[in-house]
Amino acid sequence: MANFQKLTPRSEDYSKWYNELVVKADLAEQSAVRGCMVIKPYGYAIWETIQSELDRRFKQQGVKNAYFPLLIPKSFLSREAEHVEGFAKECAVVTHHRLMNDPNGKGVVVDPNAKLEEELIIRPTSETIIWSTYKNWISSYRDLPILCNQWCNVMRWEMRTRLFLRTAEFLWQEGHTAHATKEEAEDYARQMLDVYADFAENVMAIPVIKGVKSPNERFAGALNTYCIEAMMQDGKALQAGTSHFLGQNFAKSFDVQFLSKENKYEYVWATSWGVSTRLMGALIMTHSDDNGLVLPPALAPIQVVIVPIFKKEDDLAKLMDKLNPIADHLKQMGIRVQVDTSEKSTPGFKFADYELKGVPVRLAMGGRDLENGTIEIARRDTMTKETIALEGIEQVIKNLLDEIQQNCYNKAMAYRTANIRECDSYEEFKTEIQKGGFLLCHWDGTPETEERIKEETKATIRCIPLEALPGYKEEPGKCMVTGKPSAKRVVFAISY
Amino acid sequence: MANFQKLTPRSEDYSKWYNELVVKADLAEQSAVRGCMVIKPYGYAIWETIQSELDRRFKQQGVKNAYFPLLIPKSFLSREAEHVEGFAKECAVVTHHRLMNDPNGKGVVVDPNAKLEEELIIRPTSETIIWSTYKNWISSYRDLPILCNQWCNVMRWEMRTRLFLRTAEFLWQEGHTAHATKEEAEDYARQMLDVYADFAENVMAIPVIKGVKSPNERFAGALNTYCIEAMMQDGKALQAGTSHFLGQNFAKSFDVQFLSKENKYEYVWATSWGVSTRLMGALIMTHSDDNGLVLPPALAPIQVVIVPIFKKEDDLAKLMDKLNPIADHLKQMGIRVQVDTSEKSTPGFKFADYELKGVPVRLAMGGRDLENGTIEIARRDTMTKETIALEGIEQVIKNLLDEIQQNCYNKAMAYRTANIRECDSYEEFKTEIQKGGFLLCHWDGTPETEERIKEETKATIRCIPLEALPGYKEEPGKCMVTGKPSAKRVVFAISY
Repeated sequence: MANFQKLTPRSEDYSKWYNELVVKADLAEQSAVRGCMVIKPYGYAIWETIQSELDRRFKQQGVKNAYFPLLIPKSFLSREAEHVEGFAKECAVVTHHRLMNDPNGKGVVVDPNAKLEEELIIRPTSETIIWSTYKNWISSYRDLPILCNQWCNVMRWEMRTRLFLRTAEFLWQEGHTAHATKEEAEDYARQMLDVYADFAENVMAIPVIKGVKSPNERFAGALNTYCIEAMMQDGKALQAGTSHFLGQNFAKSFDVQFLSKENKYEYVWATSWGVSTRLMGALIMTHSDDNGLVLPPALAPIQVVIVPIFKKEDDLAKLMDKLNPIADHLKQMGIRVQVDTSEKSTPGFKFADYELKGVPVRLAMGGRDLENGTIEIARRDTMTKETIALEGIEQVIKNLLDEIQQNCYNKAMAYRTANIRECDSYEEFKTEIQKGGFLLCHWDGTPETEERIKEETKATIRCIPLEALPGYKEEPGKCMVTGKPSAKRVVFAISY
Repeated sequence: MANFQKLTPRSEDYSKWYNELVVKADLAEQSAVRGCMVIKPYGYAIWETIQSELDRRFKQQGVKNAYFPLLIPKSFLSREAEHVEGFAKECAVVTHHRLMNDPNGKGVVVDPNAKLEEELIIRPTSETIIWSTYKNWISSYRDLPILCNQWCNVMRWEMRTRLFLRTAEFLWQEGHTAHATKEEAEDYARQMLDVYADFAENVMAIPVIKGVKSPNERFAGALNTYCIEAMMQDGKALQAGTSHFLGQNFAKSFDVQFLSKENKYEYVWATSWGVSTRLMGALIMTHSDDNGLVLPPALAPIQVVIVPIFKKEDDLAKLMDKLNPIADHLKQMGIRVQVDTSEKSTPGFKFADYELKGVPVRLAMGGRDLENGTIEIARRDTMTKETIALEGIEQVIKNLLDEIQQNCYNKAMAYRTANIRECDSYEEFKTEIQKGGFLLCHWDGTPETEERIKEETKATIRCIPLEALPGYKEEPGKCMVTGKPSAKRVVFAISY
């Protein structure tokens, strides 16, 4: 049963609003294990739709799913030097393979005789185990490309965790491809970035900036990290997906060579790319409001809820005579419909619950409507409602769902546009960045300058945009900090 | 590239045949981590179809997917006494959460300062973590039933492993339901058994016996374990799915009570049920032959392969003018088609590869066919082929796929029928059981007798059938070992 204490308003405490909303809308909760979450059925239903939409797109790109082991031998992690520096340290380490009854009392203890010869790590990401496998799959150019993806759980021992945004265990997909040439691998990394951007904008209704990371923010072991960056309603940036061009780093670490068409042995070129349950956080923080979740219809587990308003069983039957055919018709149109005839709670209580859960369209029908041949239709995104004729209602709803999807995107885009601005003075930057939003600034391209800005303001370069943002043009200038030349502006923000 | 050394024939070494087939057909392989497998794209595509078919059936039963943590606090395992005895001992134990650079050289070592206060176990099954969660979800009868399932990885530290059949890590689904009454929980456990049996027979084309386990073979913590048992081609039994009635055991261990309609606090009733990647082993061992995999069409990643036979590019173009429309039409009919125009290998090589991979229907067209308006159609299950007219080929193929699906089931059923027999003498049993197959015997119902039979013959009671097997009737008799009374025959076999 949902809890109907009001949410803390976003304006009062955005972070608290988020934490409350995730729990009250039945999306996820903390588990008994530090930093690990339980994804509840309603939250998981959204994740399942994200999965199926992405999976379909991946398969259109020739990707095939596979499954690689959860555990990685410790020694694998140190093979790629940068990778272990950036990644492998905070992780769950398996040292034993057996428990035994406690000889001194109740319960169980670790059996000291069951110590592993080499410790195993719960995967924080799978480049190492996958490239040790690819070594056996690749011998000739005929074996390339390999385009594999896996949907799985991964673990990173984060100290501070927040539901969906940063958890010790999370769910994700990780694609790992192997190519014969540098160009093909780089193109593929870019191509998958386009898939993510298309998905973010057209399914999640989240506008994103496609860009490339500065060296400081690159994935450990990559030559280039492409990313999509989104702006949340508090003006902070959230990295919604990354696609890495890994060069020959992992092929060299795991000695993966192939015989080329020219009959020469060459190292294989690689990419990897992933999105995670973090997208759930992006979804919530982009669209939702002080009344609860707002879901773009494409991801809503329930797109339309139908609530008959009745006092007697007899009235219900009459209402359902009208409502059942509508529900059936909508289902046939591929719309996810729920009819709520339960008598557990009042209509007002139901309305509030479906608002909290972000159901895009709510239909309600009472005795008066029955007499008049009308129905009340309410939309979640604008919180508006009207009474309309039953005739042709199905097409009205279908159009409305499309409109809501588009409106979610437009609202998010309008917010982002209003919160992007150029900034040419570092003094101004220091105060402006605290107001939130993205600042487009010139930067001299050095890690030192980026590091200094981060230390002094907490802002980082979210990305170097691949193309000019709408309404802006790409032009050279001078670094706001050092005055050295800059080829184009980059995006600074404080990020999740 | 597939390896075309012939498979070891089943008659020579069934076990070797299986191991070779799994690897050669590109289904799975051993990984660098002891006992953990890599599921390759072709094998994973079959698993994905198994998942989607089961998932759809679960949802029809009102089940919702969710996700619970990978790691379980060690103390949780000892809460349910029988559960820890039966399960928790051979498992992967996480003791530390950080690595550090080795102060004495290269590589990384476990950071001794990052020892966990309480060790965490990689889930061997999730009853404990889920019931610790359900405690927060359940307070009144209104919160019941809860019908959750999760698709995930689990880990059991098996000493001897075999691909798909017994691996340290495997993929599965585990359903966990909570009910207000004993009857409802028991009914639900039975209902899910029916779902499994329907899936096994109608999708996997594997005949199964529905039964209940003897106390010795019960899931640790269950009051009753229902199961479906299948017969492999070597006459051994394979448990293909289990559904447990857990009574109030886990509710009591985790103190999960609800306020009933009668306003009394009562413990919640539970079920759990699961199938795993072990089903892949059952699928392979039920249908395949000395030429490779045989897949029932419902699970084949490629249902129809189309191979044009040509020497010149020009010939290929003419053939494709005929073949492309057929491929398109088949796809529109929802059939999974692959067209193989590659010039990497000869038609004979391709044919052998698709046979190895178990593609149910193969179409081939050459110059002569083009002139005659014919096509060669070959079916994998019977290894027969014929040349038929192109006209109406799509419907012919659709019917043929249905026929192959049915034939796979019929063949498996005929084998099982031929290898089930009654046995009333324990002396006879000892020699008969070594020949393989299922023996229907009277048993006195005691664990002691079952234990003795297992020690002396390696055979176990696979199940007490819920209903008489086809061609047999249920009748009382005397235990073949002790002569004590028996209500009905039970199924003995040597099992995987």
